[in-house]
Amino acid sequence: MFTIRARSPGGRARTGALHLAHGDVQTPAFVPLATRAVVKTLEPREVAALGYELILGNTFHLFLTPGPELVAELGGLHRFMGWERPIITDSGGFQVFSMGHGGVADEIKGRGHSRDGSHGAIVAIEEEGVRFRSYVDGRERFMGPETSMAVQAALGSDIALVFDECTPFHVTREYTARSTERTHRWLERCLRWHARHGPEHQVLYGIVQGGVEPDLRLESAETVAASPCPGVAIGGSLGQDKEQMYEVVDLSAEALERRAPERPRHLLGIGDIDDLIAGVQRGVDTFDCALPTRLGRHGVALVPDPGARWRLDLAKARWRRSPAPILDGCPCPACAPGFSRSYLHYLLRARELTALRLVTLHNLTFVAGVMAQLREAIDAGRLPEAAAALRAGATSYSGRPGS
Amino acid sequence: MFTIRARSPGGRARTGALHLAHGDVQTPAFVPLATRAVVKTLEPREVAALGYELILGNTFHLFLTPGPELVAELGGLHRFMGWERPIITDSGGFQVFSMGHGGVADEIKGRGHSRDGSHGAIVAIEEEGVRFRSYVDGRERFMGPETSMAVQAALGSDIALVFDECTPFHVTREYTARSTERTHRWLERCLRWHARHGPEHQVLYGIVQGGVEPDLRLESAETVAASPCPGVAIGGSLGQDKEQMYEVVDLSAEALERRAPERPRHLLGIGDIDDLIAGVQRGVDTFDCALPTRLGRHGVALVPDPGARWRLDLAKARWRRSPAPILDGCPCPACAPGFSRSYLHYLLRARELTALRLVTLHNLTFVAGVMAQLREAIDAGRLPEAAAALRAGATSYSGRPGS
Repeated sequence: MFTIRARSPGGRARTGALHLAHGDVQTPAFVPLATRAVVKTLEPREVAALGYELILGNTFHLFLTPGPELVAELGGLHRFMGWERPIITDSGGFQVFSMGHGGVADEIKGRGHSRDGSHGAIVAIEEEGVRFRSYVDGRERFMGPETSMAVQAALGSDIALVFDECTPFHVTREYTARSTERTHRWLERCLRWHARHGPEHQVLYGIVQGGVEPDLRLESAETVAASPCPGVAIGGSLGQDKEQMYEVVDLSAEALERRAPERPRHLLGIGDIDDLIAGVQRGVDTFDCALPTRLGRHGVALVPDPGARWRLDLAKARWRRSPAPILDGCPCPACAPGFSRSYLHYLLRARELTALRLVTLHNLTFVAGVMAQLREAIDAGRLPEAAAALRAGATSYSGRPGS
Repeated sequence: MFTIRARSPGGRARTGALHLAHGDVQTPAFVPLATRAVVKTLEPREVAALGYELILGNTFHLFLTPGPELVAELGGLHRFMGWERPIITDSGGFQVFSMGHGGVADEIKGRGHSRDGSHGAIVAIEEEGVRFRSYVDGRERFMGPETSMAVQAALGSDIALVFDECTPFHVTREYTARSTERTHRWLERCLRWHARHGPEHQVLYGIVQGGVEPDLRLESAETVAASPCPGVAIGGSLGQDKEQMYEVVDLSAEALERRAPERPRHLLGIGDIDDLIAGVQRGVDTFDCALPTRLGRHGVALVPDPGARWRLDLAKARWRRSPAPILDGCPCPACAPGFSRSYLHYLLRARELTALRLVTLHNLTFVAGVMAQLREAIDAGRLPEAAAALRAGATSYSGRPGS
């Protein structure tokens, strides 16, 4: 289900394509979130028009509402939400454990208990699975490996992820070790359930855990590589800063390259521009992250300005009178018609939904452009130069973001 | 600036075109609101794609923020908001007086002090104008006929409305009489200011007031007809129910037909489907109203179901499992791709912005279709039949709304 087209000389980066039930996905690729069966503020045709071939639906949220039975009754997740291309569903593990652990969250503001602002509560983590209280109706619900697989089967995604515990950064090595062992046992149970009941068209990705402990990461990568999962995701706590995160990704991807070089590698929950570049260089094939869309809804536009963390906050008073678009030459629905920063600033301050949508469209356009540049560079055998240029603020557009 | 193409035999209904600085507008036409320089949840290109040729910007809100100076600096309202077709701006009178009077509002829920949910306060109504407290920063501001004209000049709209007092339903006849007299004096001042300082390209509409008093309405219609305003709007309190509203509109339009038959007539703030049909039959050329877009943001879709007031509330539990689109055969971005009521219901419950946008697009598509049918019927000399069919639930689409 994965073919490799070109490899970066002397590195692990590669271009290729996932061949999935609902179509092909050119890699390396960024995967926008469709948490609640929608890429927030957008329509499916718009996401497709930006060039995205794969989106990620959220098993945990869809399990609680509208429920997998209803989605199945309406023809599965693709039909329900009107998206004809491939879908990957996460396992729900991240969300379930976020409720208990907290702190993993990469919330922009650093607030909230979970990455999606949901407020539930874990009742018990057991070998069988996790009992928790639903944020929808307060009822006690259960999710374990088999539940997660059954929900993902009902949703009918192209790629399902195994149910895992997403260990946070602040726990002990012992906790991480025990948790990683349990995640490996859950991997076996997921594989068993999927082999018997999983939809023919759905492929299963294992998840590498192990926190920031190099030996646990290595062991986890080898365990997943030894499993028959056709794809692998790298998840869990990736460290306290970018340097440590890159080390953990590097270590995991290196082990996977050694043991399962032909399998696609997905990095969970990472989407800063510099992290996308770094991830591709380390051999990651796909990434999902709330960041580009969430920043958009906060009025923060992505721009080729590494010194400002690639961000331009349109709500800032300095843009009140600025006639410039977000980014000169950008082909997105915000920049191409020439909407000024002044206008977007005004709409954001007036809480007009149109602005959240326009900045979301811009951000997804920007990320799609970066990924396209990386793919082209790998195919052309000049990834190091392209990565350096991107890191210095180059884009395929003509514009200067600071103007 | 107005040419009449066809007249309904034995009636006042007519088709025609407004010839404005930024293009022509086929009439009868519905005018979507762009209160804060945006048709809520949409982009200008989308509003144009639905066939709309004229939108209405709000002088009061744009006066307070971002301010006419900033809009002028950014090239005027058209350029600021990226809308290249004609714009009409209301005078601000309605909003200023709503703060004091309340109750005029056609709020869906019947709550709130003004039609847009803004909360300000009138400090004093004087011959010169109105002093009020801004809902933006609490500062005392002033608006009179000249202010309103100057703001509309800075915005650069194609059609400006004269500053008027919008008298509510619950005041005495004496209050209405005095207020209407003052509105006529303000009309003179607006004309004077506009003749000296108004933009060349901008045309001015007078406003007929007079509450529900037939003699005051007649007098007001004659006063406006006697003025050199190239267009006329019908405003103010239109009664306590539809029957009285139709009488007031009928009376006003009849007087205008007698005294100024060649001038276009705009009906302010009316947009229920049956009211659009009734208004066209009584000789109204253009209508503006928040209703189609506001209903959309509340998840209420317009459908050809007169028995349900043309409304289908997608948030209702009965649609939870419905695979049907809002309206079979409807060409809008919600119905054409086949989004189910079940999906829209789910998105609305999950507070996903995409749903508000989709229902808004549906509603504006539906209203555009009704207006197109009315225009075609007048041109074909069969308005009574078409109006009866529309009132019975016919559309140009094939669908049945109750399915």
